Amino acid sequence: MVEGRKSVNELFHSDWDITKIIATNPELLDNPHSDLLDIVSESDYKKVSQFDTPAGILAVTGIPKPLDLSLKKGLNLFLDGISDPGNLGTIIRVADWYGLDQIFLSPDCVDFYNSKCISGTMGSFLRVIPIIKDLEKLTPEANEVFGSLLNGESLYNSSIDNSKKSLLVIGSESHGIREENLQHITRKITIPRIGKAESLNAGIATAIIIDRLINA
Amino acid sequence: MVEGRKSVNELFHSDWDITKIIATNPELLDNPHSDLLDIVSESDYKKVSQFDTPAGILAVTGIPKPLDLSLKKGLNLFLDGISDPGNLGTIIRVADWYGLDQIFLSPDCVDFYNSKCISGTMGSFLRVIPIIKDLEKLTPEANEVFGSLLNGESLYNSSIDNSKKSLLVIGSESHGIREENLQHITRKITIPRIGKAESLNAGIATAIIIDRLINA
Repeated sequence: MVEGRKSVNELFHSDWDITKIIATNPELLDNPHSDLLDIVSESDYKKVSQFDTPAGILAVTGIPKPLDLSLKKGLNLFLDGISDPGNLGTIIRVADWYGLDQIFLSPDCVDFYNSKCISGTMGSFLRVIPIIKDLEKLTPEANEVFGSLLNGESLYNSSIDNSKKSLLVIGSESHGIREENLQHITRKITIPRIGKAESLNAGIATAIIIDRLINA
Repeated sequence: MVEGRKSVNELFHSDWDITKIIATNPELLDNPHSDLLDIVSESDYKKVSQFDTPAGILAVTGIPKPLDLSLKKGLNLFLDGISDPGNLGTIIRVADWYGLDQIFLSPDCVDFYNSKCISGTMGSFLRVIPIIKDLEKLTPEANEVFGSLLNGESLYNSSIDNSKKSLLVIGSESHGIREENLQHITRKITIPRIGKAESLNAGIATAIIIDRLINA
């Protein structure tokens, strides 16, 4: 289920297999005359909405078949146990901004198609393919494996080589990168801290690191 | 009202004027014998919690008197109409990470002391002072005013001079920097986009820009 005006309209123009669109006002959809669209009352809409402040438009859609893709040249991203759907949505949007069109997720990450996650991507879920995989299946083909940790070398001295396959591992909000995955990290990196906050959230840390690694 | 184990314990060790702490389990507070602490049942706790998934500990505290501080040397941050408490909380945490100890807010920003905002700061609200002010009151003392816009020069060519007073203006999630404030911007900057996402959220954009301006 995809909720929100921007996301539903992006979905509407994609080649995804949409079953139904429900809205409180036909003008919320780019084509108000679509056969897919049903208009409902605000009170009926609230019954199916996942949000406290309903957006007034949602779509029900099929999900593309899961793909089994592997690493590309340049930067690849692996999320280890990300459990907050808002963080995952933000990270997908960031990946899309920086031109990553796929993202690897450990099997225990929150569901990519959770409606809060989808909504947080602001449409980027249509362009970033989720691939669920264990880290150890990916690392043999990686030239280097960066890991975001608190005790690594400065991010500002790190960069990627676009002719090689680099993998960036981001750990969960509360547990970081899991113990058994640490052995696969070949370069521990850290965002240097000036002030006193204990940590940054996973979405923020991912954005800063990708920005620096890609544009060093 | 401050909710969540980490935030309440940071508050507990600060010099803020705490009225009362309520928890479902005394072990959630660093000093379970504190006179401030009342233990309540989980069902009673849920009645006062602001969250769907209650943290089990909250504190009621006085708020420090608003201060009227002005720009410091180095980077200063002004938020123009930020309305999402989660974004504001994230930005306060980022400001704290990069050593900013004050933050300027337009009068129509969401309340700094909104409980979702406070919770999102993960304790950083104790170290970052909010100052509510119109932008035009600040710009006369700024040596340069950076504005995050979609049509500016590349962020990667921008840096600040720590001997001068620089001000970074971040606009709201939906409207950007408001029309009447644009005239005060002396340097329009943009995070270069590689992929297709239309925008980044305000918290993410703020983090990437601060990281680059401070550590150029």
